[in-house]
Amino acid sequence: MRYSKLLLPTTKETPAEAEVISHQLLLRAGCIRKLTSGLYTYLPLGLMALQKVAAIVREEMNLAGAQELLMPMVQPADLWEESGRWQKYGPELLRFKDRHGRDYCLGPTHEEVITDIARRELHSYRQLPINLYQVQTKFRDEIRPRFGLMRGREFVMKDAYSFDADDEGAAKSYEIMKEAYHRIFRRCGLSFRAVEADTGSIGGSYSHEFMVLADTGEDTLVICNECDYAANVEKAAVVLTDAESSGAPLQPLNRVETPGMKKVDRVADFLKVTPADIIKTMIFLADGEPVAAMVRGDRQVQEVKLKNLLQVSEIETLDDAEVWKLTKLPVGYVGPVEISIRLVADQEVMRMVNAVAGANEKGMHLTGVNPGRDFEPELVGDLRQITPEDGCPVCGGQLSLTEGIEVGHIFKLGTNYSDALKATFQDRDGVDKPFVMGCYGIGVSRVVAAAIEQNHDKNGIIFPLPLAPFQVIVLNLGLNNESVSGAAEQLYRDLQDRGVEVLFDDRDERPGSKFKDADLLGIPYRVTVGKTYEKESVIELRIRASGETVMLPFADAATEIEAMIREGLQKLQDG
Amino acid sequence: MRYSKLLLPTTKETPAEAEVISHQLLLRAGCIRKLTSGLYTYLPLGLMALQKVAAIVREEMNLAGAQELLMPMVQPADLWEESGRWQKYGPELLRFKDRHGRDYCLGPTHEEVITDIARRELHSYRQLPINLYQVQTKFRDEIRPRFGLMRGREFVMKDAYSFDADDEGAAKSYEIMKEAYHRIFRRCGLSFRAVEADTGSIGGSYSHEFMVLADTGEDTLVICNECDYAANVEKAAVVLTDAESSGAPLQPLNRVETPGMKKVDRVADFLKVTPADIIKTMIFLADGEPVAAMVRGDRQVQEVKLKNLLQVSEIETLDDAEVWKLTKLPVGYVGPVEISIRLVADQEVMRMVNAVAGANEKGMHLTGVNPGRDFEPELVGDLRQITPEDGCPVCGGQLSLTEGIEVGHIFKLGTNYSDALKATFQDRDGVDKPFVMGCYGIGVSRVVAAAIEQNHDKNGIIFPLPLAPFQVIVLNLGLNNESVSGAAEQLYRDLQDRGVEVLFDDRDERPGSKFKDADLLGIPYRVTVGKTYEKESVIELRIRASGETVMLPFADAATEIEAMIREGLQKLQDG
Repeated sequence: MRYSKLLLPTTKETPAEAEVISHQLLLRAGCIRKLTSGLYTYLPLGLMALQKVAAIVREEMNLAGAQELLMPMVQPADLWEESGRWQKYGPELLRFKDRHGRDYCLGPTHEEVITDIARRELHSYRQLPINLYQVQTKFRDEIRPRFGLMRGREFVMKDAYSFDADDEGAAKSYEIMKEAYHRIFRRCGLSFRAVEADTGSIGGSYSHEFMVLADTGEDTLVICNECDYAANVEKAAVVLTDAESSGAPLQPLNRVETPGMKKVDRVADFLKVTPADIIKTMIFLADGEPVAAMVRGDRQVQEVKLKNLLQVSEIETLDDAEVWKLTKLPVGYVGPVEISIRLVADQEVMRMVNAVAGANEKGMHLTGVNPGRDFEPELVGDLRQITPEDGCPVCGGQLSLTEGIEVGHIFKLGTNYSDALKATFQDRDGVDKPFVMGCYGIGVSRVVAAAIEQNHDKNGIIFPLPLAPFQVIVLNLGLNNESVSGAAEQLYRDLQDRGVEVLFDDRDERPGSKFKDADLLGIPYRVTVGKTYEKESVIELRIRASGETVMLPFADAATEIEAMIREGLQKLQDG
Repeated sequence: MRYSKLLLPTTKETPAEAEVISHQLLLRAGCIRKLTSGLYTYLPLGLMALQKVAAIVREEMNLAGAQELLMPMVQPADLWEESGRWQKYGPELLRFKDRHGRDYCLGPTHEEVITDIARRELHSYRQLPINLYQVQTKFRDEIRPRFGLMRGREFVMKDAYSFDADDEGAAKSYEIMKEAYHRIFRRCGLSFRAVEADTGSIGGSYSHEFMVLADTGEDTLVICNECDYAANVEKAAVVLTDAESSGAPLQPLNRVETPGMKKVDRVADFLKVTPADIIKTMIFLADGEPVAAMVRGDRQVQEVKLKNLLQVSEIETLDDAEVWKLTKLPVGYVGPVEISIRLVADQEVMRMVNAVAGANEKGMHLTGVNPGRDFEPELVGDLRQITPEDGCPVCGGQLSLTEGIEVGHIFKLGTNYSDALKATFQDRDGVDKPFVMGCYGIGVSRVVAAAIEQNHDKNGIIFPLPLAPFQVIVLNLGLNNESVSGAAEQLYRDLQDRGVEVLFDDRDERPGSKFKDADLLGIPYRVTVGKTYEKESVIELRIRASGETVMLPFADAATEIEAMIREGLQKLQDG
């Protein structure tokens, strides 16, 4: 492709609207343009990267025995009513009526539709196991779309659904997908981890997220340094060490004045205790109802854990005024004793003895607070965020935290959807049984953004070879020199004839801006045909990722470059 | 692919819901399934055919110099307000609000979005000409979706948009696309014609439809047998021959009783005149307002011509009771004299002398009706449908009618959208000018249906080779015979190794139902490995389209079949 003909509007300025680096670079490198909030057009270069990801996904899904189909993006409400999600899904499900007044939604996911297909087309255990997938545009009406392709409203997703006769089969299907996902992300040239994760609004019993590691991830991961445990902090279970009773006698409740002391640290200093001696009580809205959640003063509430403990679909935080308006509780002085709203506790709180807590009155705290005697939570569970100081829940080893970007998510669904939609098959024993299902997503457009978050420098994108829109950019630096131009043109054609994907920079621009654009676009190999060609018939090859430069005899260039690319791709394919 | 693993639910019964043959066969051959009105899931086989069409379209678009991008399917209302189509488009444009109450639509077409991209990214004549296209899922909220993939609500479309500096350039871009479309449909293996057509709600000055010829087309085409004129009857202009004055003196108006005579033929018989002597007056709703349209008694009103003459966006027909309720006019006895509603006439009516027309009273007609003296239409134009008896509007030659299915449509848009959206570039002379645009659509999913309408027999689909989900089906008729099974398996692998797309029927089914399914699926080449292999090491090759059968030595089979397929595809590619 000739650069001069390509719609590839690069820009020098970093667009103000873009907060994260992938968004900035996708805009600057002319890969995407914003239509309106959360909606982006993929310009030719961006679409090429997207299609590269999709092609790898399709190849590996087919190799894993999955079959591609394509379901409508518009879905009728009645299926969602059968599954119960029409009510439960929340405002991210974009609902509308057609011209006849019938209810529909724009599909954010397709469990209902695929289960409907299964119940109509799969009748016998002989048709199982089966795994059906599609690569499709989805819509989620995000309240605050941001970060470009990372959290848009419209996005391209690969979603797969497996149907098995029993749990054992479903576990096998799940493992096949887990392996396929490892191959997919490895072939994309990405550094990633599979982690245990929350199942969210998809439901089901068990799930893994595939996380591309980056400095700027949306998710925080906890990884064991000693075993292969890895989990999203939203999910990472805190395991309490065996309780040692302090043996201290229970003190009576005592009210103390703590004027202006709303923070744990200030209260601890003032009362000469440690933050670990204080019960922190936070107010949230759980599906619209206020609830008080307690953790130890040196811990953080993990909202996803809270959501799961309460079995609600949405947790919202409130500012001080909102808390007061709703509950008449003074933030900073809230505590569990005689509290007027629902109360839940982290498991660790229940072990505290003679603790300090808010008195539910401005400027006042209580000391000598003891669980069981002074308060009884409605629910107790694992509510707090894990820290590196906690032991690994599997081996007790040392944990560390890292950032990650979710690009894939696989779920064991069990019979949630097949029960709800009465989707059954006749088993070997003649009995009708519900399908045991799994579902498996990859954010195809998100992979492009995550690849850039992981692979860039101050000059621009560094595309992993398998995802690069072009493998090679050839710069003609002798537009007014017939011999140089002829050689550049010949190399461009030679590479194309060998099946190499080449962008030929034939623009009438200064060398400096050609170099800058080549760096910005992140094309893995840059070839410069200029003065050295005229003098000694050599060209310069520069590797974008390492910055390494080599001079190649013009006569060997096409062969050598082709070989480097084949080798690079093969290495990732072999794993 | 092994048949036993594939989701390919064929059925014997013709589904009652399906009126047209492509719909019936797509359902029966397990290619598609209905989700709800106008929404279909492509099962694996249907998706393969769809992807074949899309791949040919992409190849030829790229060869024609167009660049692929991908725009959002959800579009903000403000762009449609700028173009004026938010009001004009009618209820086929599915409109909705997002969670923040902002207005959006599901894109049925993308002129607004692409023009917005052009005005932001194309600044100079040096960037022109440019042609940008996408392959995307569209939505049109059809009032009565039907015919499966022929007139669904959600469908896959290739839409391209060209931008030029002037009319001359735009004409060239249009011709390039016209040629590309010829190549595309030829490569799809289809028999088709390009015809002049109406521009409809897209607007613009000039357009061609690409019609796949079939017995069951939705559109009627008129084709000149002597020159290369071809047009949709919606558009085909009727050229009046030079008028010869009859010289007859004008008779006075006269009321005659015609009890129970609502039809032209009955009135003509009764009054001893010909249908050509009668003015037929029909009532329509034009954008909700009643209007009376006149044609000669032996002619038919062409509603699209009426719509264009009136410059309205919708013409609806009414039943007798509705006409009475709205206008107090008695259907069958309506005429132009002293009519109370808007009146328009076909050009031919204005030449009639001493005509018969309804008297606007039940059971009564008028004779001696003369245009100009007795009535004066608000508008006169070409309103009637062309007939084979009319001369070719280009050469005067003999016309014939045929049926066709629209699969592509190309438009000269001019500056309609660039003017409305103020999309300009700086021309060579430094002056800002609006882009001169063209737009070019292909109904990718419709091509699959049209291919089947054109190519089928009583046993099922006859896929043209380039669109077939599989090129070859290998039937193993010796499941319990190791030698036969081994040979079938080997042929399957040999063909796959040669890059042939093979479906291997390894199912435990009777030969009869394997043969039936192979015919139904329409796979171009069927190979049977059975008794003849055991006896004489030969297999049977049957060509689906011709029914021709040849016996091939097993040893040569893979080579010969591969050669036939290559040759068949190459012939279409060469044109």
